Amino acid sequence: MTLACPTPHHENDVVLLGHGAGGRLTAELLDALVLPVLDGQHGALEDAALLPGHPDLVISTDSFVVSPLFFPGGDIGSLAVHGTINDLAMRGARPIALSVSLIIEEGLPLAELRRVVEALGKAAREAEVPVVTGDTKVVGRGAVDRIFVNTTGVGQRHLALRPSAALARPGDAVLLSGPIGLHGTTVLSTREGLGFESDITSDSRPLHHLVDALAPLGEHVHSLRDPTRGGLAAALNEIARDSHVAVDIDESAVPVPRAVAAACDLLGLDPLVVANEGCLVAFVAPAAADDALVALRSLSEGREAVRIGEVPSSGAAGRVTLRTLVGARRVVEMPLGEQLPRIC
Amino acid sequence: MTLACPTPHHENDVVLLGHGAGGRLTAELLDALVLPVLDGQHGALEDAALLPGHPDLVISTDSFVVSPLFFPGGDIGSLAVHGTINDLAMRGARPIALSVSLIIEEGLPLAELRRVVEALGKAAREAEVPVVTGDTKVVGRGAVDRIFVNTTGVGQRHLALRPSAALARPGDAVLLSGPIGLHGTTVLSTREGLGFESDITSDSRPLHHLVDALAPLGEHVHSLRDPTRGGLAAALNEIARDSHVAVDIDESAVPVPRAVAAACDLLGLDPLVVANEGCLVAFVAPAAADDALVALRSLSEGREAVRIGEVPSSGAAGRVTLRTLVGARRVVEMPLGEQLPRIC
Repeated sequence: MTLACPTPHHENDVVLLGHGAGGRLTAELLDALVLPVLDGQHGALEDAALLPGHPDLVISTDSFVVSPLFFPGGDIGSLAVHGTINDLAMRGARPIALSVSLIIEEGLPLAELRRVVEALGKAAREAEVPVVTGDTKVVGRGAVDRIFVNTTGVGQRHLALRPSAALARPGDAVLLSGPIGLHGTTVLSTREGLGFESDITSDSRPLHHLVDALAPLGEHVHSLRDPTRGGLAAALNEIARDSHVAVDIDESAVPVPRAVAAACDLLGLDPLVVANEGCLVAFVAPAAADDALVALRSLSEGREAVRIGEVPSSGAAGRVTLRTLVGARRVVEMPLGEQLPRIC
Repeated sequence: MTLACPTPHHENDVVLLGHGAGGRLTAELLDALVLPVLDGQHGALEDAALLPGHPDLVISTDSFVVSPLFFPGGDIGSLAVHGTINDLAMRGARPIALSVSLIIEEGLPLAELRRVVEALGKAAREAEVPVVTGDTKVVGRGAVDRIFVNTTGVGQRHLALRPSAALARPGDAVLLSGPIGLHGTTVLSTREGLGFESDITSDSRPLHHLVDALAPLGEHVHSLRDPTRGGLAAALNEIARDSHVAVDIDESAVPVPRAVAAACDLLGLDPLVVANEGCLVAFVAPAAADDALVALRSLSEGREAVRIGEVPSSGAAGRVTLRTLVGARRVVEMPLGEQLPRIC
């Protein structure tokens, strides 16, 4: 026991939900605690890391804690496959192997576990990536919420592709492979019973074939990112920050499905910060932009690909600006914290 | 609503704690649900899998859910590093990279998170394996118990070593690199406040240098396994099963520290089924057994290496037998389920 005054309570004394949201709080936590542990060159925070001694291979890890486990368009099993494949793809890599680790709550119905595992296996087979190893832990009731899934993937890089969040350049076209906001609003609506889930489905899907399609453009493909946690706003801000460039986006060009817009209106959400699991942003040299759009549109998952903006030749490094429908300009901030917990 | 009779309640309707214990229930769950999803050749269930197209590389994944987070001799961070390094080492591989994924409960004190992450980083540096990528998820209070850690590792195989749980042969010497039972009894005693924790510490440590030391013996090293969940009993039963051989062990040769024996007596546990995190079992061709013991003992972590038994030239395939101190023989069963939940 001590008679000393308690130290003042700071918000930062404990982990907050927002620390896991992929926004500024996450970045602060990573900078302060986690990154000092990571080795190697960490100029740009990429979705996947090079494997030391094997520059053609990349590795990426992700834990999935989505609630509910099943939602229109997907489930925690298929999401865990797609999410890690996509992180590899954003480094210009084809997935060659996945590991799967399950943490299961005692008492989970075996039928539910079977559904998750079967969906996971089906998604892996459809993406033609083998699940080569796994781990299963069971913890007591209340120690985990039903089931969490970690997937870690290894990918083989396309020889010609070297995309990095640090390689966007003035003049680049900013391309988006499909509409935004579907995954986050679908999961939220399903969890909270808001009713939108009859109109929208998650966009969860693998994106590596889109990257295959871009491969012939080689080094013209400067940056790739899938706008998951923190949405398009976070993805664009990360590339602007890591490449030291400005990014200008046209609001009228960003495809937001009507039901997503309605859900976001009701919930007071900005579709730009809602998580996606089935689209990518590409920063491409201007000479290759049209070819890149054609390549993306050649596949069903990129059929709605559009050009949403560009990297201006001048402008504040690190700043993302949106030209609104009425012609005004507003800064698109890096989202601070969690608007939508347990979306992935 | 339905008026039909409820289906009869089977024990197997829900996931049980024992399904994650590394014993027979785990094997049943894996066989029925998880293995059909895994691809490739699954004759023997190994600690790490070959990476397709890269036969010199192996991959292994493990989620750590130990409670408490800190215990004499280790913590969840260092354990997560050691555990995955050791799974790679048991395939004859040196670790070349780790990924780390954290699932954190909202409200966890940042000081505690810092302790875990720093311990993890220190363990990785000491083992000279870089942490190349990571992921952080935060979930609401009650959705996870404080913090769980997944580590996935990639290892480069020693050219000469090709150990497999399926390669034990009649005549093999069975070697054990150190005393058993320390990790499981330490964690349990700390969690339950049994008082033994002042006398024992976890053996958590990396084992890859022991494997380096065995490398010159090349193909004489038939099988390697670290007896974690399910203890020595599970490790020996797995090798006996996958190699279709019998295994004979001398009780008098198995080193059980006095405090471990006392704790097991009190708790009604068999030291053979208690988890270890810092010793390995090696099945070695008889001509190389003495050299292997010398090699293991040349390192501090193998100083107490001993020969504990052999593979008899005849005997029931898959059966592990213990010659007791009084000269009797008893079958060492594959443990059924969980005696010690959340030990790793």
